Amino acid sequence: MEKDITLSFTDRRQVLAPGALEEKLRACAPILAAAVAGEERYADVLGWRTVDETAGPERVAFLLEQAARVRADADAFVVIGIGGSNQAARAAVKALRPEGGPAILWAGNTISACEMERTLRELNGYQSIYIDCIAKNFETLEPGIAFRVLRQYLEKRYGEAEAARRIFATGTPGSTLHQLCLDHGYTFLTFPEKVGGRYSVVSDVGLFPMAVAGIDITALTQGMRDMRDQLFAAPAEENLALRYACLRNLLLEKGYRLEMLSFFEPRLDYFAKWWIQLFAESEGKEGKGLYPVVASNSEDLHSIGQFIQQGSPILFETFLHVQARDASVVLAHEEKRDYFDYLEGKDFWDINQVACRATVAAHSEGGIPCLELTIPALDEHTLGQLFYLYLFTCYLSAGVLGVNPFDQPGVEAYKGYMFKNLGKPGVS
Amino acid sequence: MEKDITLSFTDRRQVLAPGALEEKLRACAPILAAAVAGEERYADVLGWRTVDETAGPERVAFLLEQAARVRADADAFVVIGIGGSNQAARAAVKALRPEGGPAILWAGNTISACEMERTLRELNGYQSIYIDCIAKNFETLEPGIAFRVLRQYLEKRYGEAEAARRIFATGTPGSTLHQLCLDHGYTFLTFPEKVGGRYSVVSDVGLFPMAVAGIDITALTQGMRDMRDQLFAAPAEENLALRYACLRNLLLEKGYRLEMLSFFEPRLDYFAKWWIQLFAESEGKEGKGLYPVVASNSEDLHSIGQFIQQGSPILFETFLHVQARDASVVLAHEEKRDYFDYLEGKDFWDINQVACRATVAAHSEGGIPCLELTIPALDEHTLGQLFYLYLFTCYLSAGVLGVNPFDQPGVEAYKGYMFKNLGKPGVS
Repeated sequence: MEKDITLSFTDRRQVLAPGALEEKLRACAPILAAAVAGEERYADVLGWRTVDETAGPERVAFLLEQAARVRADADAFVVIGIGGSNQAARAAVKALRPEGGPAILWAGNTISACEMERTLRELNGYQSIYIDCIAKNFETLEPGIAFRVLRQYLEKRYGEAEAARRIFATGTPGSTLHQLCLDHGYTFLTFPEKVGGRYSVVSDVGLFPMAVAGIDITALTQGMRDMRDQLFAAPAEENLALRYACLRNLLLEKGYRLEMLSFFEPRLDYFAKWWIQLFAESEGKEGKGLYPVVASNSEDLHSIGQFIQQGSPILFETFLHVQARDASVVLAHEEKRDYFDYLEGKDFWDINQVACRATVAAHSEGGIPCLELTIPALDEHTLGQLFYLYLFTCYLSAGVLGVNPFDQPGVEAYKGYMFKNLGKPGVS
Repeated sequence: MEKDITLSFTDRRQVLAPGALEEKLRACAPILAAAVAGEERYADVLGWRTVDETAGPERVAFLLEQAARVRADADAFVVIGIGGSNQAARAAVKALRPEGGPAILWAGNTISACEMERTLRELNGYQSIYIDCIAKNFETLEPGIAFRVLRQYLEKRYGEAEAARRIFATGTPGSTLHQLCLDHGYTFLTFPEKVGGRYSVVSDVGLFPMAVAGIDITALTQGMRDMRDQLFAAPAEENLALRYACLRNLLLEKGYRLEMLSFFEPRLDYFAKWWIQLFAESEGKEGKGLYPVVASNSEDLHSIGQFIQQGSPILFETFLHVQARDASVVLAHEEKRDYFDYLEGKDFWDINQVACRATVAAHSEGGIPCLELTIPALDEHTLGQLFYLYLFTCYLSAGVLGVNPFDQPGVEAYKGYMFKNLGKPGVS
C-alpha cells in the first residue's frame, strides 16, 4: 500500500521504561492472533470484522443505487438516529461532504422539545424531504419518537403513499422496525444482527447516509479492506493497531486517566465524537478505562491548552495529523500595516502545520506523552482506513484491558428508571 | 429575588464525611470575604467583578444603539475571535437567539485553510455583511489573519469607505487594533484592560455580538447584577458560589479528577464550551485542577453514559437543570401501531424531564457524586445570573485550590515555538 498511516510516540520524560512497549507487544501477541482469527466468544458481534460480510462490493452497489434515487430528488435528507446509529455518518459528512446534493439534517438524537421544534421549522424551508430512521432493535426512545413525528410530518405534506416512498428505515431483519416497513411500504435497509451500534460504520447504517451526501463509499470501504488486510497480516511487533492498543494501556497502567485526541482540522470534530463513543462505551466498565477527550485546535489551545501544559498530569495526547494540502488561503499583501505583516504571502495551510508542530513540541517537552497518528490525506480511502484502524484497535485494547469491547451493561440503569416512569409496558 | 438558582448535592456513597462541607465553608470564609472586597493582588484583572464598571446601563445602551444600526442593515454578522473572545457570545447566541435578524458566523477561531475557504464561500451568499474583530492585544494569530482576509474581502465587495462602515473591532484602548481603527475609520469597541478573555462576557466583547443577534442584553446584565448582589451579600455558609467551589475542591481532594457538566438541552452546548475554557484555563496550573468535561444529553448518554455508570471512577457530575417549559411537541395519535404507543399524548418536554431525573437517579445510585444546579428558565436574565455565578465560583474555587485564576502562563510554550518558526519579528 502506498498510502500508509503511521504511528509514532514521543516520551521525553521516559514514562515508559525502555523496552516496555516491545515486551507488551510480545505479551499481547495472542490477543492479536485471536482477534485476527475472530473469537468464538464474540462470534455474534463480529459481523464488521471482515468488512465483506456487511459492506462488500455488492452491498455498496445496492446502497449507491438507493442513494442515487434520493439524490436525484431530495433537497433535504434527515438521518434519525442516536449514538452508534449516526456518529459514523456524521463524522464522514462533516469531514468529506462535497458541495451540492441534499442538505443533511440530524434528528432523533435528543429529546429536547426545542430541538424537535427547530427541526420541524427548518424542514418547512425544503421542498423535497427524505428520511432514514436508524435503530437496531427499535426500542431506543429518541429515534422512536422522532420517527413518529417526522413520519406524520411527511404524510401531512405529501400524502401517505408519497411519504412512504420517501421513508427509509434501517434495522435488524425481523425487528419491529422491519415489520413497520413491510406494513407501510417504507424502504428497509439492514442493521446487521451481528454488528453493534458503535461498530456499525461497516454497514448500511453508516454507509447509506454517506452515499446520500455524495461521499464515495466505494473508496471508503476499500480503505477499510486495505486496513483490514494490513492489520491481519502484520505480526505483533509491527502491527499498528496492537502498538496503539499497547501504548494506551501502558500509559493507563502508569496512572494516565485520559486519552486526548488532538487535531488541527475542525472537519474532524465529528470523527472525534465517533471515537469518543467507540472507546468510552467499549472500555468504560468494571471500574476501568481511559476517559476519551478531544482537543479541536487551534481553537481548543485557547481553552484547554493551559491545562494540558501545566495542569494535573492525568492525560496523554494522540495527535491526528493530515499530511496532504487540501485547501489554500494565502495572506495577501496589505498596504496598511496591520501587525501581521510577517505572515504575508504565507498560506493558512502552512501556518496551521507550524502551529501543530509547535504544539507537539511544547506538549512533549512539557512532559506529556505524545502519540502521533499521521494520515496521508483526509479523503474517503483514508477515512475508511481510519475507521477500521480504530475499530480494530479498540477490539484489541479492550482485550489488553481485560474487558468485553462489545457490551454496554451500564446503560441499562437509567433506562430502567426512565421506562418505568414513562409507563412502558412490561417494565416495573 | 424570585427567580432563584439552587444547588443540591447527592452523595449516596458518602464520599464526603458528614460535616465536611460545613467545615470547609467555614475555613474558606476568608476567601469569600476577600473576593467580595476585591483583592489588591488581582486589582488589574477584576474589572468584571462589579459588572457596572464594564457593563453598566449606559454602556449597554450604547451597545444596543450600535447593534440596532447593524441589525437594520446586515444579513450576516461575522464574529472574529478565539477563546475568551467569542465563547460567551457564542454560548448566548446558541441558547437564546430569537428568530430573524442577521445570520451570525464565527471566524478567526481556527487556522484551517479549509474552514477559511468555507467561510468565504458562505459569505458569497449574503448581500450585506458586517464584521467584528475581537482581540484584546491583537497579537493572537487566528483573529489577526482572519481579520485581514475578511477586511480585504469586504473592501473588494463594497469599496474601502463602505467596508470601513461595516467593520467593528473590539480591543484594548491604545492597542494596535485601536490604532488600526483610528487610521481606517472602523468602529472601535472596548475590550477592557482590566478584564481577561475568559471573564470578558461582562463587557463589549460578549455583549455586542449578543445584541446584534437580538438578545436582550439589558436583562442579561441585570441577571449578572442580581447574582452579584446575591453572592456579595450571602454569608459563607449560605453562599451559592462558595458552596459550589468548596464541593468541587473537596471532591478533587478525594481523588476525583474530572467535573462533568451534564444537561438535557443542546442549546447549552456552547455554554458548556465557555465553562470548559473558564475552568480549564483558570485552574489547570501548577500540576493541579479538575479537568472539565461535558455530557450533552440525552445524546451523550449513548456515548459516554456507559463510562459514567461503570468505568473508572474518576468523575463527579454537575447537572444543569432548566425548570421552565419553553417548547412543546406532543406525540400525536397514530393509527398504525409503532411500538411507542405508550408515549402517545406525552410531550417531548416532559419525556426529557423524566430522562433527566432517571439519569440523576441511576448515576447517584451508581455512586457518582451528583451536584444539581437548577435554573428557573433558559432566558436572558437567568443566563446572566449563570455567567456571573460561574465567574465568581471560578474565582473562589481557584482560591480554594491555591492558584491564580487570572493568568495562563502555560499557553506561552507552544506560541514560542510557533512564532519563532513563523519568523515573527522580535522572537528568537
